[in-house]
Amino acid sequence: MAANVAIGIDLGGTNIKIGVVRADGSVALRRSVETRAAEGVPAVLDRLAKLIDELVSDCGVTRADVSGVGFGAPGPLSHIRGFIFACPNLPGWVNVPLRDLFQERTKLPVAVENDANAAAYGEFVAGAGRGCRDMVMLTLGTGVGAGIVMNGALQRGAFDNAGEIGHVIAVPRGRPCPCGQAGCFERYASANAVRERFLEAAQAGEKTTVNIGGKLTANDVAEAARKGDALATRIWDETCEHIALGCVNLQHMLNPQRVVLGGGLINAGEQLLDPVRRHFERLTWKIAQDQPRIEFAQLGDDAGIVGAAALARLARQDAP
Amino acid sequence: MAANVAIGIDLGGTNIKIGVVRADGSVALRRSVETRAAEGVPAVLDRLAKLIDELVSDCGVTRADVSGVGFGAPGPLSHIRGFIFACPNLPGWVNVPLRDLFQERTKLPVAVENDANAAAYGEFVAGAGRGCRDMVMLTLGTGVGAGIVMNGALQRGAFDNAGEIGHVIAVPRGRPCPCGQAGCFERYASANAVRERFLEAAQAGEKTTVNIGGKLTANDVAEAARKGDALATRIWDETCEHIALGCVNLQHMLNPQRVVLGGGLINAGEQLLDPVRRHFERLTWKIAQDQPRIEFAQLGDDAGIVGAAALARLARQDAP
Repeated sequence: MAANVAIGIDLGGTNIKIGVVRADGSVALRRSVETRAAEGVPAVLDRLAKLIDELVSDCGVTRADVSGVGFGAPGPLSHIRGFIFACPNLPGWVNVPLRDLFQERTKLPVAVENDANAAAYGEFVAGAGRGCRDMVMLTLGTGVGAGIVMNGALQRGAFDNAGEIGHVIAVPRGRPCPCGQAGCFERYASANAVRERFLEAAQAGEKTTVNIGGKLTANDVAEAARKGDALATRIWDETCEHIALGCVNLQHMLNPQRVVLGGGLINAGEQLLDPVRRHFERLTWKIAQDQPRIEFAQLGDDAGIVGAAALARLARQDAP
Repeated sequence: MAANVAIGIDLGGTNIKIGVVRADGSVALRRSVETRAAEGVPAVLDRLAKLIDELVSDCGVTRADVSGVGFGAPGPLSHIRGFIFACPNLPGWVNVPLRDLFQERTKLPVAVENDANAAAYGEFVAGAGRGCRDMVMLTLGTGVGAGIVMNGALQRGAFDNAGEIGHVIAVPRGRPCPCGQAGCFERYASANAVRERFLEAAQAGEKTTVNIGGKLTANDVAEAARKGDALATRIWDETCEHIALGCVNLQHMLNPQRVVLGGGLINAGEQLLDPVRRHFERLTWKIAQDQPRIEFAQLGDDAGIVGAAALARLARQDAP
């Protein structure tokens, strides 16, 4: 079997995904386990270290064949120090020197990366960004995240917060955001935004065939739009327009060859991609031919582990 | 005198600025000559090659001490091919293989870069961005340009158009722009925008003490604001708010340590910087301490030649 592998770990609040990843970015073996964050950091890391031994063994290789371990983690962190300041979905995971703690347990090189960055890097090495040097991945989920690859390298900025595109101000003096700003992109272009803006308009009296009494999701709005509901159609189309505006702004700011769309909203398929591309063509400038291709992500849930594993390899190369 | 120098050239429509730049980014000697673009590319380049010999000799060094020549040029170009597609201010300069033509004449390594990028890189190596790894320079002039340095390297994107922040859409469905878009940042945050928005409001009947019959500039609006004119005060403050919004968006997208403001608008001094910083503090998020410092550029007209010279040194290092 693959004699040179790396481990990618996607730290989620409910589940941890872990994969053995080959040098070409393909996943040899993947597993998902409950996080059980309440057990505390040491217990969770002990379990993960043990799990790595099992997985490696199941792959027919030994720990000596493992280049390193990469973590994709939510929340503010320092990739240079391998240090997590806080994890919104992992109660108690505050000021965790994750790299040092896990290197102690496994004696392997460990890289720690923001999860949106890890996913973007995964698509870059083995998914929709393959062959690009400059690529941005937008993750359209509960909020909106982004990972930026320029000139072949992941870009993190000075404080590990580059690609916080969800909080780029898309509409001056616009919708309030819990972050303290007004008009944030994710108040217009996320799954949450679809739901919230639909409910607000319905509650304000705009006519709809949708029953807004129950639990409503962005998928429900998408489905109602497919069935011709006028309000759902308007909200969905405006969301696509905002996503397209975001792509125009990425074009001018970062000038990538490709913008890769991921996250829950892409489950809508062509119902999302077609209008996003159409609005993009209409909204972008006409004086230069430097438009990025807009594509869906290809790796799904694997993107995070593939990217984290690839970053672990890089960290090993960069190590002194 | 300095035994290791590089030449920086800022190609303008009216004048060409040329400087002999030391390894530390200081300018040993500078000269400005008329462009006379109408003479044609070969004649202009012949003159420049001769001028370099004079300047080098005046500096007490020989051509062997020159690491290379860097051009900062307006308009679309390929920095990899050293090729200018067109220069808006240089009639007839279309599809010019500038690097090859000038290497032939001088036998020196030649780098060709976008002028906003060259200026940003100049501030990065020897001006307001010294000591940063991640910096963005906004040039607030007739339009708005930007140069992006991330992880110590100038970032150009896939089509050499990264940093076209003047055409980031700041206001969805906003003011029309000659580029074919609506709501471009430079329709709100440039010297032109100050003038145009002031005139529009005055012509629409808003009261002002300013005589709008003559030739009006952004400086006149700034001066009227200082004297308490209500319309000028409103337009100036809104301009500062838009610049601040631009800085917030750079913070979240690129997460630099520093945003450097240059261009004609910074002649207003504290009248610009104070309100930009104040609006920025008010508009930025409250959930993380990753705000860039906002500073004025320090090199003035030298930024372009200093940056172009530094990029020429890099190009030489990168050469095969």
